[in-house]
Amino acid sequence: MTNIALSTASADALTKLRAHTPLVQVITNRVVTGFTANVLLALGAAGAMVDIPVEAGPFARQASGLLVNLGTPGSEQRLAMHEATEAALDEGTPWVLDPVAIGSAPVRTPLAYALVEHRPTIIRGNASEILALARFGSGGRGVDATDDVEAAADAARALARQYGSIVAVSGPVDLIADGDRTARVENGSELLTRVTGGGCALGAVMAAFAAVADPFEAAVAATASYCIAAERAAAGSAGPGSFAVGLLDELARIQPAEVLAHAQLSLA
Amino acid sequence: MTNIALSTASADALTKLRAHTPLVQVITNRVVTGFTANVLLALGAAGAMVDIPVEAGPFARQASGLLVNLGTPGSEQRLAMHEATEAALDEGTPWVLDPVAIGSAPVRTPLAYALVEHRPTIIRGNASEILALARFGSGGRGVDATDDVEAAADAARALARQYGSIVAVSGPVDLIADGDRTARVENGSELLTRVTGGGCALGAVMAAFAAVADPFEAAVAATASYCIAAERAAAGSAGPGSFAVGLLDELARIQPAEVLAHAQLSLA
Amino acid sequence: MTNIALSTASADALTKLRAHTPLVQVITNRVVTGFTANVLLALGAAGAMVDIPVEAGPFARQASGLLVNLGTPGSEQRLAMHEATEAALDEGTPWVLDPVAIGSAPVRTPLAYALVEHRPTIIRGNASEILALARFGSGGRGVDATDDVEAAADAARALARQYGSIVAVSGPVDLIADGDRTARVENGSELLTRVTGGGCALGAVMAAFAAVADPFEAAVAATASYCIAAERAAAGSAGPGSFAVGLLDELARIQPAEVLAHAQLSLA
Repeated sequence: MTNIALSTASADALTKLRAHTPLVQVITNRVVTGFTANVLLALGAAGAMVDIPVEAGPFARQASGLLVNLGTPGSEQRLAMHEATEAALDEGTPWVLDPVAIGSAPVRTPLAYALVEHRPTIIRGNASEILALARFGSGGRGVDATDDVEAAADAARALARQYGSIVAVSGPVDLIADGDRTARVENGSELLTRVTGGGCALGAVMAAFAAVADPFEAAVAATASYCIAAERAAAGSAGPGSFAVGLLDELARIQPAEVLAHAQLSLA
Repeated sequence: MTNIALSTASADALTKLRAHTPLVQVITNRVVTGFTANVLLALGAAGAMVDIPVEAGPFARQASGLLVNLGTPGSEQRLAMHEATEAALDEGTPWVLDPVAIGSAPVRTPLAYALVEHRPTIIRGNASEILALARFGSGGRGVDATDDVEAAADAARALARQYGSIVAVSGPVDLIADGDRTARVENGSELLTRVTGGGCALGAVMAAFAAVADPFEAAVAATASYCIAAERAAAGSAGPGSFAVGLLDELARIQPAEVLAHAQLSLA
Repeated sequence: MTNIALSTASADALTKLRAHTPLVQVITNRVVTGFTANVLLALGAAGAMVDIPVEAGPFARQASGLLVNLGTPGSEQRLAMHEATEAALDEGTPWVLDPVAIGSAPVRTPLAYALVEHRPTIIRGNASEILALARFGSGGRGVDATDDVEAAADAARALARQYGSIVAVSGPVDLIADGDRTARVENGSELLTRVTGGGCALGAVMAAFAAVADPFEAAVAATASYCIAAERAAAGSAGPGSFAVGLLDELARIQPAEVLAHAQLSLA
């Protein structure tokens, strides 16, 4: 697959997403719920936060995709995460694991190690989180990465091989790996780090794309579409508040041809 | 009551709401908490999210109105819902039930059937939810209606008669029924479906209006005021992000005379 | 200390905050999570909502500061609050208590009386809440103050002496007291009362400033910086929706020299 083929696949994935309106089950932290749902709606997907025990499992069998984000894992939500990911694995529902701030945190770290056994379609995190999940490092400071994206490349590939997952490491240049290939996406804006949920919402977008495309292409297409929209929003913004608003507007407006034209992808 | 009388009553209800600043107890899902509170504040009411057991019941006796929305019904919140609605019924506090995504979901569906026995002042939902609550159908896909508003008209009237409630069905044309009358509100914007909480917040607005007006008029006034503000916000927006911001600005700005002039109501 | 010296200290505190990017542990209510995190990021700090038992205590030992806001105190969060404030006291992590809507509410009122024994660095509330915490009065109506700021001045000083805390009372003029001194900040905008979390987010900002400055100066600097940003946002807004967006933009943009120039402080 060439760089151009990957850009074309990304554009096609956006076309399919708009045609199918995938419904993503969102089990995420309580800080980013509204923003995540708005990102999905803006892009042309939909979210449903079904995160209570007894309902989470059955819903994961019907949903187009599933996001599990460990940001604020209360006890009921933890039960729902186990239920939903087990059902997703059994049913073949594509699912995304975002192991927020794991490393030394005593609840979420073992939780992540347990959930990853349900073989996420995509694992998304910053470098510190990916290193910790692969047991290569000790994790970050809250939700900030203290490690460099490229320093997590080997950990990403190791995780990809172990679980059959696509692993996406976010940073100034995003890295997306399966066991063999590594794609890099150079689009984006520093303002994404000044908006809460800037990264968490991308996990939901990956789940939406994974409902309509091959997982590797889905992770790349999600990152490229989201980051190009972010570039446009940044150009028209006066700060992080107007940037977040503009990002939603641009996600609703972005067209597949624009993804094809502006994606800065490289494949190794 | 004529169409004009209903528009006049809607405008008068907004005048009263602004004069009294009703305090709405909000027991809602974790996705829309902030947006719901901001909608209430913008319009001229206030919200207080008192949704824990032991506090929810006593607060429902003091609040001007109560919203119970079943979007993410964790176990503590479910206890709070029972407490609050029982107290509201006993005290005569007007309350609104929003049975989000009921139908086949195994926790919220029996919960809705139990809560409706506390005779909500207003029941608000999409067509699929109203059909499911009336046991006429099997419910929707997440928060999306898969059924048409008019297909739920008989279910709405049946629920209204059984519980003495006003039943509001949201859709491109909103339908509001008591046992005898059916009002339709043709205001609104498709962008309301691209913002999370676009419908949920309307439930809180209905609870605020029900604190100052007759329930049928309150449901109509809430829908008309909210949807006219949405039309104005849509006219000035570049997408769903700026629309949501503009909706708050327009809710703060809308005047009773504008509700009277622009409400597109019909009564049958 | 003169008024000018206090303005200078406020400006210096903002310089230090930008240099250190303090990480604030945020244990707050579910209505304002996203807005609070965005306020911290915009200003140049960061938030991490670590509010589950077992994780909350250890995290409070590493965090730069801690906010505990009692707005929606579910049972797990209550355990986390005890853990985190005990650890903060033991470790010397500066922490802020926001006793939202205490007075007659049967869960949060005794909770606040228990937590205050862990000697908050800063206590922040409206007049009704401060009166109730000092057992001078019976509390407010939801999150609204029904008492005047100046009526709470004696209660603020009494609390400050009893717990060694700085006590900040929010209102049209904000009052900040230690046992001896009382500062007043006249900056701000009425629109802060039309945005949910307008006050709650200020508590998080105080925790961020307390990580880099003396507690009294931190409370003043936080109030002045936040309220000057609010004045600027109000000048450019069309209502509460655009005001909230503009507030985030202005928090990112405000410079120490502007705090020095525009802070309206008086010290008695």
